[in-house]
Amino acid sequence: MPRALSLGLDFGTSSVRCLVVDAANGDELGTAVVGYAHGDDGVLYGDDPLLARQHPGDWFDSATEAIVSALRGIGGEAGAIVGIGVDTTGSTPVPVDARCRPLALDPRFADDLAAMAWLWKDHTSHSEAEEITELAKTMGRPFLAKCGGTYSSEWFWSKILHCARTAPHVFDAAASWVECADLIPAWLTGQSDPGTISRSICAAGHKAMFHTAWGGLPDAEFLAALDPRLADLRGRLYSGAEPSDRIAGHLRADLAGELGLPAGIPVAVGAFDAHMGAVGSGIRPGTLVKIMGTSTCDLMVGPDDGTIPDIEGVCGIVPGSILPDMLGIEAGQSAVGDLFEWVAEQLAAGADHATLNERAAELRPGESGLLMLDWNNGNRTVLVDPRLTGLLVGQTLKTTPVEIYRAAIEATAFGARRIIQQIRDAGVEVREIVTGGGIAERSPLTMQIYADVCNMPIRISRSPQTCALGAAIFGSVVGGTHQDVAAAVNAMTGFKDVVYRPNARAVAVYQSLYELYETLHDAFGDTGRHPPLDGVMKRFMAIREEAASA
Amino acid sequence: MPRALSLGLDFGTSSVRCLVVDAANGDELGTAVVGYAHGDDGVLYGDDPLLARQHPGDWFDSATEAIVSALRGIGGEAGAIVGIGVDTTGSTPVPVDARCRPLALDPRFADDLAAMAWLWKDHTSHSEAEEITELAKTMGRPFLAKCGGTYSSEWFWSKILHCARTAPHVFDAAASWVECADLIPAWLTGQSDPGTISRSICAAGHKAMFHTAWGGLPDAEFLAALDPRLADLRGRLYSGAEPSDRIAGHLRADLAGELGLPAGIPVAVGAFDAHMGAVGSGIRPGTLVKIMGTSTCDLMVGPDDGTIPDIEGVCGIVPGSILPDMLGIEAGQSAVGDLFEWVAEQLAAGADHATLNERAAELRPGESGLLMLDWNNGNRTVLVDPRLTGLLVGQTLKTTPVEIYRAAIEATAFGARRIIQQIRDAGVEVREIVTGGGIAERSPLTMQIYADVCNMPIRISRSPQTCALGAAIFGSVVGGTHQDVAAAVNAMTGFKDVVYRPNARAVAVYQSLYELYETLHDAFGDTGRHPPLDGVMKRFMAIREEAASA
Repeated sequence: MPRALSLGLDFGTSSVRCLVVDAANGDELGTAVVGYAHGDDGVLYGDDPLLARQHPGDWFDSATEAIVSALRGIGGEAGAIVGIGVDTTGSTPVPVDARCRPLALDPRFADDLAAMAWLWKDHTSHSEAEEITELAKTMGRPFLAKCGGTYSSEWFWSKILHCARTAPHVFDAAASWVECADLIPAWLTGQSDPGTISRSICAAGHKAMFHTAWGGLPDAEFLAALDPRLADLRGRLYSGAEPSDRIAGHLRADLAGELGLPAGIPVAVGAFDAHMGAVGSGIRPGTLVKIMGTSTCDLMVGPDDGTIPDIEGVCGIVPGSILPDMLGIEAGQSAVGDLFEWVAEQLAAGADHATLNERAAELRPGESGLLMLDWNNGNRTVLVDPRLTGLLVGQTLKTTPVEIYRAAIEATAFGARRIIQQIRDAGVEVREIVTGGGIAERSPLTMQIYADVCNMPIRISRSPQTCALGAAIFGSVVGGTHQDVAAAVNAMTGFKDVVYRPNARAVAVYQSLYELYETLHDAFGDTGRHPPLDGVMKRFMAIREEAASA
Repeated sequence: MPRALSLGLDFGTSSVRCLVVDAANGDELGTAVVGYAHGDDGVLYGDDPLLARQHPGDWFDSATEAIVSALRGIGGEAGAIVGIGVDTTGSTPVPVDARCRPLALDPRFADDLAAMAWLWKDHTSHSEAEEITELAKTMGRPFLAKCGGTYSSEWFWSKILHCARTAPHVFDAAASWVECADLIPAWLTGQSDPGTISRSICAAGHKAMFHTAWGGLPDAEFLAALDPRLADLRGRLYSGAEPSDRIAGHLRADLAGELGLPAGIPVAVGAFDAHMGAVGSGIRPGTLVKIMGTSTCDLMVGPDDGTIPDIEGVCGIVPGSILPDMLGIEAGQSAVGDLFEWVAEQLAAGADHATLNERAAELRPGESGLLMLDWNNGNRTVLVDPRLTGLLVGQTLKTTPVEIYRAAIEATAFGARRIIQQIRDAGVEVREIVTGGGIAERSPLTMQIYADVCNMPIRISRSPQTCALGAAIFGSVVGGTHQDVAAAVNAMTGFKDVVYRPNARAVAVYQSLYELYETLHDAFGDTGRHPPLDGVMKRFMAIREEAASA
């Protein structure tokens, strides 16, 4: 019997990756990465530094090229592919016409930034986000209980409301809005009614305030209070959303021919990259999967039986968003790789990370006397406050950039521990950390510091492309190779041999430092637990903004 | 009538400067700078990073060379020199034999670091300093009332006690101990009895807890409680000390011949460099003279009529230490130029200060959102706590080294303002700042920031070598050209044309930032006014030290 293969498509910020794996064991047989034609490394920028868009046509073109290229790598086995899974960035909503075609492909909107995909990292909608948060409180709606209490400028409704206000011609032309994670399966399967295409529970639950507890999307009265046009749009969106073990549809024949794939193979419902990355990392109860990059996404699963409460400051708790039939918990840190890069680039004269790692590894825990708050890009989880800024304390006239680099690594580890503490306080057990990607593979120092600070073993996922692998896992499930996702995860994922285990002496030093980190965290984080310092950072910001606008 | 000239000798950390001026108007006619033969840039270091010594023989050799060289610059006018003034670093005590010769010149001690001059920045005696501070409190002695409440490891008794304990062979061989400021006039005038040479009130009052209010030096009972040998030494030190308008003696004939000076010209009692620099800067009531260098010394004078109280955290209040018949007030910041150098060297890839200044000047006050505490080398005045460390807050992923450089300048300005506030709170009027030296002349940005932060005009002293000029002023007074120091200051000092005046908009921004600086200052300075954060920095230090000794 020929082996069964699965195909995963991973749509990132600057490229799309296609990965073909053996569905029996996850062996990676072929892969290709193709960048996007438009923009600066795939991203369209505008005069407003907060703006970040993407051309949705690039997704189709680059995915086509990536699939064809990856299939070349597996010789004549394309016919063995049993299913396709898809993960994407998000929240990345796109305005579409009545045939589910992105408005950006209409010549009338070809150069209109508002008609493009509103990329996850677009922050133009920050005042709309604040408005939504306020309104939910004012109207007593429970919508934010599942997303840490604060709606984000990165999310679905903020962006659409901002579009309605600043680009009404686009808003009015849009029959509906779809997430990238919804659009790709619809494109692959030839479904063209935005009212009936499969919608991702991952995107809906984490970004669009969708929950069955309150009947799906936010009610029309609430949306009308934001803007009557949103209430109208509600009827043109969706009333159900699904996990990724469901079939979104089957590969349409014309596209199958172009790609060299069997027509009619099942395509799974899409989900976000980090969530599928967690699946590709072998997520299971008790394991926190940390997807480390410029920022970091922390993912866990737990029983969907009412035992896990809403967790203050944790940005998402959504049934089925990671594994079907389990709660998906998403948290994150807003600067990790970015923070290391800032130190290297700005404070260490552009020194390379390998050298900085090597020299930082020569220092002992606590030796530099430095402590940093990892808030150079705000705080995403626990405090949920994008306006917070960084802090460095303990420097002397002999403090070196290498010491600061190590302090930055430690700061992100303390931040990671603070998130774990928040999750544990809600009664969710956290026994180990699994991570992967560039930092995990290139910086054993970072991994050891995380193990010592969190006092937990850390494993590295076997695959270096866990997101695409996660997508392929769902492809194998909808393709029938495995009876459910848990079985597919067991068969197709694994860890590298190395395990970073806590060192008792370092654990003790970091315990002391962590207590100080918590003190500063609470004092500077406006928690109300250190009244005399509350608001201090905000006041710097206010002064800065006043100066900038003077 | 030929004009009268005066000669000032300024003994710095790495060189001695000789300056010859016209006593009528301060015109600088000849100058020479000669480095020291021993050590690294004049300083002898040991295995202990806290150790800093100097070879006292270098002072004699280099001063001789500097005088001869400076006199060559004035042609045949050496005979017109009417007097000599001397300033030195301090507290820089030297063990001497019964003929007032430094032990270091005895072949037995030629290589003995304990027999050298204990340079002002030697901190090996920190535990002795703490012991002295504690004992003064325990025994209810008032000795620290005039020096801010805390005795320093940089000062006379700490060093001598440390020598007695760690190098008893040197302590036992010493007939007495003299400050550099006392040794140089004795050497010039051929006085060889350490019990009768003139002692500087500046050195005695600021560093040796000498005050007429308690009968001179600390009492024998107190010293015996530290170490019986100190009580014994007390009788071999001094019972009186004088300001620098008094004649220490007259230039001895053999040396005069060697130098090419008239024999028998009067030599003034010595004083410390910063204090004479204040005189050379034109100090008068209401004017704060800021001697800016790697660290900073702030000097003021006030009436010696009992109206000025002891000031908590201000390191010295001594009658006659700057101007005769007035109280001399000394405060300071432990890192100013050093802090700028740290940012430039460690965080800005060794960028030169001119470039950093130029780019930092393009920023508006408050624009960077950064705030720094200027404590990378501890806090010398107000908190008097050398173990405090630096703090930087407000950084984002876009923060640049130039912004940090500007924040460092602002931090030192906030520190300067905090000192002024402490002095004003004691009822002393502060109307303007006069400064001078490298930073003042090379960085208009720094001067403008200080004017804006302190909301006071800042003038720059005319002479770039105010310490040597101050010494020459006292030379002119003991030489009879002026009837008193005030008259000499009026005649011989002046300001540059530029005046830095506060800019109203910047003043307002910096007022807001200063309030935050004060909040952090009090929170991190263990003032007891922000209990939740108290002790945090100390705990970093304890962890660091524990790690270093592990």
